[in-house]
Amino acid sequence: MEKGLIFVISGPAGCGKGTVVGKLREMMPNIGFSVSATTRPPRPGEIDGVNYHFITRGKFTELLEAGEVLEHTEYCGNMYGTLKSEAVRTLNEGRDIILEIEVEGALQIKSMMPDDAVAVMLIAPDPEELERRLRGRGTESDEVIKRRLKRSVEEIGLAENYDYVVINETGKTDECAAKIQGIINAEHLRYQRMKDTVNGYAAGQKI
Amino acid sequence: MEKGLIFVISGPAGCGKGTVVGKLREMMPNIGFSVSATTRPPRPGEIDGVNYHFITRGKFTELLEAGEVLEHTEYCGNMYGTLKSEAVRTLNEGRDIILEIEVEGALQIKSMMPDDAVAVMLIAPDPEELERRLRGRGTESDEVIKRRLKRSVEEIGLAENYDYVVINETGKTDECAAKIQGIINAEHLRYQRMKDTVNGYAAGQKI
Repeated sequence: MEKGLIFVISGPAGCGKGTVVGKLREMMPNIGFSVSATTRPPRPGEIDGVNYHFITRGKFTELLEAGEVLEHTEYCGNMYGTLKSEAVRTLNEGRDIILEIEVEGALQIKSMMPDDAVAVMLIAPDPEELERRLRGRGTESDEVIKRRLKRSVEEIGLAENYDYVVINETGKTDECAAKIQGIINAEHLRYQRMKDTVNGYAAGQKI
Repeated sequence: MEKGLIFVISGPAGCGKGTVVGKLREMMPNIGFSVSATTRPPRPGEIDGVNYHFITRGKFTELLEAGEVLEHTEYCGNMYGTLKSEAVRTLNEGRDIILEIEVEGALQIKSMMPDDAVAVMLIAPDPEELERRLRGRGTESDEVIKRRLKRSVEEIGLAENYDYVVINETGKTDECAAKIQGIINAEHLRYQRMKDTVNGYAAGQKI
């Protein structure tokens, strides 16, 4: 069975990746999603095991030391990470995985799995819109928002390490998700992933 | 204005590229199509300036020597080529081009324009289907068909020089064309083509 691919959907805070990935979940029900682990407390409405695995810092450190975290980052005082066990199980079933993670973690995955991971950076249409989105969330202090804005612009400078950049236009979540779906489909048609098919053909296996 | 990209749709004789590209013309009316030049005589129903520019060998050689042919190949005794003037004009208008060309020509374009050309190899589902398609056309002698079959298998061995490989399943032209449309859309989102957008953003041009 052909192994799945990891599609890393990432981008600075305020790029709207949560909403876009939610839409992708609806559009591609067969794709695997690896729920991240985090030490930050749930926001109103967030569900443990669905939005994140909400775990203690002690548990996170324990998993990290056991080599059970594929990528991780500390962000605004909280740990976020992808549990290796979750990702590997799904890939081995021949299913793709969509990972919604922060920029730092995306780069870790790309460097750890260069052949299997495709990284997409989502960005807001412009910095003003980015700020509006961060403030609109209404859950962070002004100090946190300023820190996030500064970091967001720094993170966009890391886009060169990504495979794709998609602008998440305001009010066009469906269009943005459809673009990412197109990227997922196209990546499966790249020569290196069709190599076995081509080689079998050229060797006349079906003649 | 952002320059267009060249999408080279290619593959061995019998892969069905003519039909698929015809479908793409319908699906993407704004995309540019560069009509190839050839010295072979028109088949029944083919129209000069639409299917090909049907020109004499003398004229073809003249254009070739003047550096006016972007890629060319001799195939079964006939010359085929892409007129430079046609392609350059369209790209400079900011429009993509779809080129339907033979395998040899596709490799010439890829080596001449590595940053601007994306090559897609279409293949029949299997060698038996390929032979059936070549015979079904009913316009070639048995000797020509055998020569083409042998060459087709050789050409599939060149797929490693392509960016994408798409299987053109029998009776699924629409699906095949939709896959190529997805590739075209995805390629425009690759980081190197979004670089100006990203750099402008990071430099705060819109702040």
